[in-house]
Amino acid sequence: MKGTEMENTAHAPLNDHRFSDDERRALYEALYNRRDTRAEFLPTPVSNDMLARVLTAAHYAPSVGFMQPWSFTVIRSADVKRRVHALFEKAHGEAAEMFEGPARETYRGLKLEGILEAPVNICVTCDKDRAGPVVVGRTHIKAMDVYSSVCAVQNLWLAARAEGLGVGWVSIFDQKALKKVLGIPRRVVPVAYLCLGHVSRFHEKPELQKAGWRPRLPVDELVHFDHWGEAADGDAAADDLLRELREAQTVVEGGAFARPAAM
Amino acid sequence: MKGTEMENTAHAPLNDHRFSDDERRALYEALYNRRDTRAEFLPTPVSNDMLARVLTAAHYAPSVGFMQPWSFTVIRSADVKRRVHALFEKAHGEAAEMFEGPARETYRGLKLEGILEAPVNICVTCDKDRAGPVVVGRTHIKAMDVYSSVCAVQNLWLAARAEGLGVGWVSIFDQKALKKVLGIPRRVVPVAYLCLGHVSRFHEKPELQKAGWRPRLPVDELVHFDHWGEAADGDAAADDLLRELREAQTVVEGGAFARPAAM
Repeated sequence: MKGTEMENTAHAPLNDHRFSDDERRALYEALYNRRDTRAEFLPTPVSNDMLARVLTAAHYAPSVGFMQPWSFTVIRSADVKRRVHALFEKAHGEAAEMFEGPARETYRGLKLEGILEAPVNICVTCDKDRAGPVVVGRTHIKAMDVYSSVCAVQNLWLAARAEGLGVGWVSIFDQKALKKVLGIPRRVVPVAYLCLGHVSRFHEKPELQKAGWRPRLPVDELVHFDHWGEAADGDAAADDLLRELREAQTVVEGGAFARPAAM
Repeated sequence: MKGTEMENTAHAPLNDHRFSDDERRALYEALYNRRDTRAEFLPTPVSNDMLARVLTAAHYAPSVGFMQPWSFTVIRSADVKRRVHALFEKAHGEAAEMFEGPARETYRGLKLEGILEAPVNICVTCDKDRAGPVVVGRTHIKAMDVYSSVCAVQNLWLAARAEGLGVGWVSIFDQKALKKVLGIPRRVVPVAYLCLGHVSRFHEKPELQKAGWRPRLPVDELVHFDHWGEAADGDAAADDLLRELREAQTVVEGGAFARPAAM
C-alpha cells in the first residue's frame, strides 16, 4: 500500500482471481469499520430479509470436515432477554471484584452489553455431534468445531456491518446458567451471545482503545519468522515485510478506510 | 433478497450506515467464494505488500478486552515446512485409523493440506498472557482469547480471497509436537496453521461438498426461536424469517455471488 492507494502489483497471470480495487476496498471497509456495539442500539426492528442475509453469511463460514456445527437461537422475547440480562448482571458484578485498584472503578463504568436495547439477540452455538463422532480435521484438535462456529460469528459480524447493523458480543456470563435459560442441550456449546440491531452510530475506534484501556499494538511486533521469537535479523525479505506492515497499519490508522460519518 | 437482487428495504434514516449495493456485493462475494485451498497452490512468491495487507486485516479482528492476543509466525523456510509436514503425515495416518469401513479409504484419498506447495505458511497463535491475568470479557469464559484469534484467522482468510490468494487451514497435527517444532512457549496456543499462496483456481463449492462427503445443510433448519428446540410454531414473523432464509440460501446456491471463473 502506498499512501491511500492499494497498489496493483504487476503480476498479470496471477490477478485473475483478485477482486477489483473497489471490491477490495469494500471488504477492507467492512473489516476496518466493524465495531463491538453496546450503547448505540436503536429500537427499530431489524427486517427479516436483512436478518436472513446475515445468518446466511454466517452459515457459509468455513467448518472443519464441512460439519457446519453452528445453530442460531434468535431471541426477540423481552422475557428471555431479561433473564439473560440478569445473568450478565450477576457475572459482571463478580468480574468487577477480580480487578484491582483504579481498574475496578474503570471497569464498572464500562458499558459492556446491549442485551435489552438490541431488538435481536442471537446465541451462536456449536453442536459437537452434528456429524458423528469422527470428523475430518477434528481428530487431533477437539476444539476445531467450536472454532468453526467462531468463524460463523465473524462472517455474521462483517455482513451486519455492511448492512448497517451493529453487533455486540457479550461474554460475561456463567455458561451453565446461560445454557439453562436457553434450554441448550448438554453436547451443544454456546459460543457467542450476540446483540444485533440498527445503531445511532459506529465508533471511529474500538471503545476500549478510545477509553485508554489498552492501545492498538503495532502489527509488525506480532510477527515472527520461521520460529517463534525469531526477528527478521538482517533477512532483507523479512525486513521488507515489517516495513510493509508498518506502512499498512499507518494507512489504516490514518483513516484511509474510514466510512464517512452518518448524519 | 428477491431473485438475485438485494432489496434495499425502505427505511431512510437507518440506511446512513449501510454500504452501497456494490459494496455489499463485494463483501458477499468474498464470503461466498472463500475456499479451503489444498491442491491448487502455485509456487509464485506472495509479495510482501499483499502479505502485509492480509496480516493487517487479521490484526483488526475483534478481541476480548481489546487484548489482541494473536501473533503470526510466517514460515517460508523449506526445512521448517518439511518438519511440519512430517507432523501432518503422522497425525493423518492416525486419523485414517479412526474412520470405519469405506469412509477410511475415502478419507485417505482426500488432499487435506498444501504445506510444502504453498509459498507461505502462517501459524496464528493466542498469547493468553498478552494483557495480564484479568481481561475484560474473559473473566467467565476462558476461551474468549482463543476465539479472538479465530476471528483474526477469518479476517485474514477473507482479505486473502479478495487479494486472489488461497488459504488452507491444516488442523491434523499433534499440538504439542507442532509447538515444539515452532518453538512456541507454554502459555501460547497455536490456533491455526494456514497455508497461503496464489492458486490455479478456487473451487466453485467446498471440496467435501463436491466429493459427497457431506451436503450443505439448509440454514432454516439451524434456527431456533427464543429457546433451543422451539420452532416458529405459527408465529408469523418467525415463519417469515424462515422463508427469507430459504430464499437467501437459494440465491447463494444458484450462484448469484459466484465470481466468474478465471482463465
